[in-house]
Amino acid sequence: MSKPLILVTNDDGITAPGLRNLIRFLSEFGEIIVVAPDSPQSGKGHAITVDDTLFLNDMPANDGATKEYSCSGTPADCIKLALRELLDRKPDLCVSGINHGSNASINVIYSGTMSAAIEAGIEGIPSIGFSLCDFAWEADFSAAEEAIKSIVRKSLEKGIPEGVILNVNIPKVSKDQIKGIKICRQARANWREKFDKRQSPSGKDYYWLTGEFELLDNGQDTDESALAQHYISIVPTQFDLTAYHAIQQLNSWKF
Amino acid sequence: MSKPLILVTNDDGITAPGLRNLIRFLSEFGEIIVVAPDSPQSGKGHAITVDDTLFLNDMPANDGATKEYSCSGTPADCIKLALRELLDRKPDLCVSGINHGSNASINVIYSGTMSAAIEAGIEGIPSIGFSLCDFAWEADFSAAEEAIKSIVRKSLEKGIPEGVILNVNIPKVSKDQIKGIKICRQARANWREKFDKRQSPSGKDYYWLTGEFELLDNGQDTDESALAQHYISIVPTQFDLTAYHAIQQLNSWKF
Repeated sequence: MSKPLILVTNDDGITAPGLRNLIRFLSEFGEIIVVAPDSPQSGKGHAITVDDTLFLNDMPANDGATKEYSCSGTPADCIKLALRELLDRKPDLCVSGINHGSNASINVIYSGTMSAAIEAGIEGIPSIGFSLCDFAWEADFSAAEEAIKSIVRKSLEKGIPEGVILNVNIPKVSKDQIKGIKICRQARANWREKFDKRQSPSGKDYYWLTGEFELLDNGQDTDESALAQHYISIVPTQFDLTAYHAIQQLNSWKF
Repeated sequence: MSKPLILVTNDDGITAPGLRNLIRFLSEFGEIIVVAPDSPQSGKGHAITVDDTLFLNDMPANDGATKEYSCSGTPADCIKLALRELLDRKPDLCVSGINHGSNASINVIYSGTMSAAIEAGIEGIPSIGFSLCDFAWEADFSAAEEAIKSIVRKSLEKGIPEGVILNVNIPKVSKDQIKGIKICRQARANWREKFDKRQSPSGKDYYWLTGEFELLDNGQDTDESALAQHYISIVPTQFDLTAYHAIQQLNSWKF
């Protein structure tokens, strides 16, 4: 039997330490093909490039990868180009990350990392997004190695349910402080934006988006709760956005 | 009692006929504030601008709007800036569109129109995205007027369930061919991309993303089915992406 084919991407760009560590962690599991953005794509959500050209560059393969390409587009573009132009068979697994920063709770909506994983999930490929709750470029990914390998091993063995993508977040603690892995729901939360208003040299106002995360959920079964207790959180995530529970109520509107 | 405050945005840009028609349709319902992208933002998904500046421009208010602003960012940025910098109270309703083109089935994932509506939904604002299944700039929006008014009226009267955003798609048919309005689930579908590979004058390969829509769902309760039968589809859409049905199965993996 041939080795599993694993497609790896991220949103922080092909040189990001999170990606390089992920490739190293995964090389024992199969043949690794990397198609990742040529520049940071954080906060790009599920953007795709419909009104511009896309470039792919053959890159040196390092850290145990078989082939690497950088792409001028978004994380979702990377998956589309990989599947349609680069790979000669469907990958057995797609893994995105390791993101520098949390994609727990509402962050999943804005996340390029998770959108790449979801794009592969839409294509029927078992898919996982990994994030470390540490924005630093020099973040320490070593504490996550064992858990990431364990999650990838289980995913290849057991099979991720169809239409489900794993959103894995790892707390920013040392390895011996990690208490385990918990399956969770997405916490209710949002961002209280504060726009930093400035003036250009020519006197024109402009803004920088900044903000504070606001948790709106006291549940013990959420990803935020698990992370606060030093567990790794896994939220099974889906791309069927239908709010089934609301269908009956809307039907009572009687158009 | 003061008139309802209605925040209007889109992803095709502030000059798009779909937006201008929507403002005209809604002006009888309340005070309309428009904050829309200054250029087309189709396919931007839930992207936000974290690594660049944002500009807001005061624009002439037309078509019954009280105030209009154009924004250099994404549709989700428009909502964030409107709520934090421009409005002095929380809107009673946010309406995004009318999109030039379908946002039914999997298109909701890539849609700037729907992401703006979802962003407002995350902020607890009752929110609706409208799309006409016609990509043409000169599309005829008149057939949609009555249904859009009816949906907005019901939404203000009955209240959209919390955490739910309405994804409304209108078939490309004349008014007398529209059979009614159906509450639906999101159809399973995807895009079979075909990348159009070209060469730059200097000999470098590049790609344009193109593709064909592929419906993978024979259900009679989907948005695609309703649209094919000339119904307007409403999918109640949510931003809690948790696949609750998969939690038990993942717990059986026993990490």
